[in-house]
Amino acid sequence: MRATTFHGAGDIRVEDVPDSQILAPTDAIVRVTKAGICGSDLHFLHYGEALGMTPGLRLGHEFVGVVEEVGPEVTGIAVGDRVVAPFAFSDNSCPCCSLGVQTSCTSGGIFGSPFWGESAGGIVEGGQAEALRVPQAGGTLVVIPEALAAAEHDTKVLPLGDVLSTGYHAAVNAGVGAGTTAVVIGDGAVGLSGVISAKLLGAERIIHVGHHADRLELGKAAGATHSVNGKDEDVVATVLELTDGLGADGAVETISSNGTIEQAITVTRPGGNVGIVGMSHFFEEAAGQPYAIAFMKNVSLHPGVCPSRDYIPGLLADLEAGKMDPSIVFTHDLALDDAPEGYRIMDERVDGSIKVALTPGA
Amino acid sequence: MRATTFHGAGDIRVEDVPDSQILAPTDAIVRVTKAGICGSDLHFLHYGEALGMTPGLRLGHEFVGVVEEVGPEVTGIAVGDRVVAPFAFSDNSCPCCSLGVQTSCTSGGIFGSPFWGESAGGIVEGGQAEALRVPQAGGTLVVIPEALAAAEHDTKVLPLGDVLSTGYHAAVNAGVGAGTTAVVIGDGAVGLSGVISAKLLGAERIIHVGHHADRLELGKAAGATHSVNGKDEDVVATVLELTDGLGADGAVETISSNGTIEQAITVTRPGGNVGIVGMSHFFEEAAGQPYAIAFMKNVSLHPGVCPSRDYIPGLLADLEAGKMDPSIVFTHDLALDDAPEGYRIMDERVDGSIKVALTPGA
Repeated sequence: MRATTFHGAGDIRVEDVPDSQILAPTDAIVRVTKAGICGSDLHFLHYGEALGMTPGLRLGHEFVGVVEEVGPEVTGIAVGDRVVAPFAFSDNSCPCCSLGVQTSCTSGGIFGSPFWGESAGGIVEGGQAEALRVPQAGGTLVVIPEALAAAEHDTKVLPLGDVLSTGYHAAVNAGVGAGTTAVVIGDGAVGLSGVISAKLLGAERIIHVGHHADRLELGKAAGATHSVNGKDEDVVATVLELTDGLGADGAVETISSNGTIEQAITVTRPGGNVGIVGMSHFFEEAAGQPYAIAFMKNVSLHPGVCPSRDYIPGLLADLEAGKMDPSIVFTHDLALDDAPEGYRIMDERVDGSIKVALTPGA
Repeated sequence: MRATTFHGAGDIRVEDVPDSQILAPTDAIVRVTKAGICGSDLHFLHYGEALGMTPGLRLGHEFVGVVEEVGPEVTGIAVGDRVVAPFAFSDNSCPCCSLGVQTSCTSGGIFGSPFWGESAGGIVEGGQAEALRVPQAGGTLVVIPEALAAAEHDTKVLPLGDVLSTGYHAAVNAGVGAGTTAVVIGDGAVGLSGVISAKLLGAERIIHVGHHADRLELGKAAGATHSVNGKDEDVVATVLELTDGLGADGAVETISSNGTIEQAITVTRPGGNVGIVGMSHFFEEAAGQPYAIAFMKNVSLHPGVCPSRDYIPGLLADLEAGKMDPSIVFTHDLALDDAPEGYRIMDERVDGSIKVALTPGA
């Protein structure tokens, strides 16, 4: 059978490979009817070797197809079913899957990472092929409803496995909901999916930011209420003007370079959310930066100076009820005129100091 | 009257300053009964000039005291009330305050930032003083309940204005709640407050990470169920061992250097949350990094590869209901054997390409 393979930077081939076979009782074989090339495939095209990809690695993580064979332990999927796959396989029952983080499935691939094509030699195959072996098939594959289970609907269903759900994930994480104002940064396939998703989630205003007039037109047709072409317009100024200077409720950030993440933060209002689903930050100079690490396991980061005024009344009630004693943090109590000494005591951690109180008139 | 002032790196003084006066109808004068020195004051001590602080700037943003005088537009606060202040002033009614982000109050200080002591010359005064003028007093000050309104309780109430609420904010943002496992990173005053807060919020297990045996003992007394001394123990390995290899539900990160943020992410389970309330990242080499920018306005960052498997069933229902057409992302549909050309078309954006589909057998 034919399959798409990686052979180095810029060297993608379609080759004859051995027919797919069931290797584990939880496997299925799917005959592919439609596959997609993803923006992340372009990252692999350019940076594959740096990402550890070896020659011969199978490509493709977006596909729909028909189940051709199932292993003896596969449940919920039958031969002949038309199915769509997410871009990572999962048993859909482990602790992480149960939390809705199937990309961290503990029954993941041989490198502990449940993504397609992650192994040289085709042990984990790819979707840009005539067929492929699907690990954890019962947990991974979703049967397409009858009304959409035909080749003519494949290009509508195929995006659900990656770009559409990725745009949706960013919109959910950006807190987009009924009545909100969302900024969608990016006019590629995921950016357009972000616009579609923000509309599905009920956003009142969708401000679509891109660099291509034709794509921004598609965004408008998909539900964007405002378009900002970053080539001609000041993105931050335009969004702030549209939002009374406060910023949007959330930003759907589909590019995710350090620069666009910063732009997303800048156009988001205090207390808002930024959903970051692009991969560009992996290729920035500051590799190893915390949010690149957080990306693979969907850990949310909440940097924030504390709005103490919001918490004080509740904490006073807890204090009055005797539920705690926060005075344990004070190790010293000095007269106000001794403040400089108090700073020194804390700074040099004199006598095991933790925190110094100052008492005027003492 | 006497007040603590900044005069340059390492040069903190207590000086005679003019008595505080009402300058705006929303002001009050508070006679301070107890003030605190905050960990962030130590940042000012060392980096004040880099942060734009000028000689003579008043210091102190933690205080409790008694209201001595109120302006004609102050409501809710009366002369003689014993009050506690948050570390930022706010009208408690602007759009940001209404969202619970009083640190971004649009009635902020003269530099648009509602923090104490942010102005040379004492225009915004500081709490490490005999008295101070409180802007937006009705929105800012919280009256202390009768049972706690005495000097003997000042050291219990004082932490609510900053360190305790800051630890609480980190714990809330880390998703700490009933039955959760929380890691608290840091054994300073905010770290200990994080332990107190995680207990208040009902955490089942509180793993306290620090470097000082005596402070970790205080943490245990305050509710930590496990202590990890980073000087002697491998923090990441210990937390993962305690959490079946998955990590804790959330990390309460009170130091917030790039290194401790990375540690917090590493010990947090997939889909978990990290609350970041320390200021160390402001002083890291990578200043201007996105989360330092997000910090001042409490914008949450959700980097995350999409768990598509979780979204596909719902999106299939939306698709079947005709609520969207995600096939708009495809501009090309090629035969499988043309995959290399498909990669080129997307990579070079040939003919306005957005996304390429591949059809086996076409």
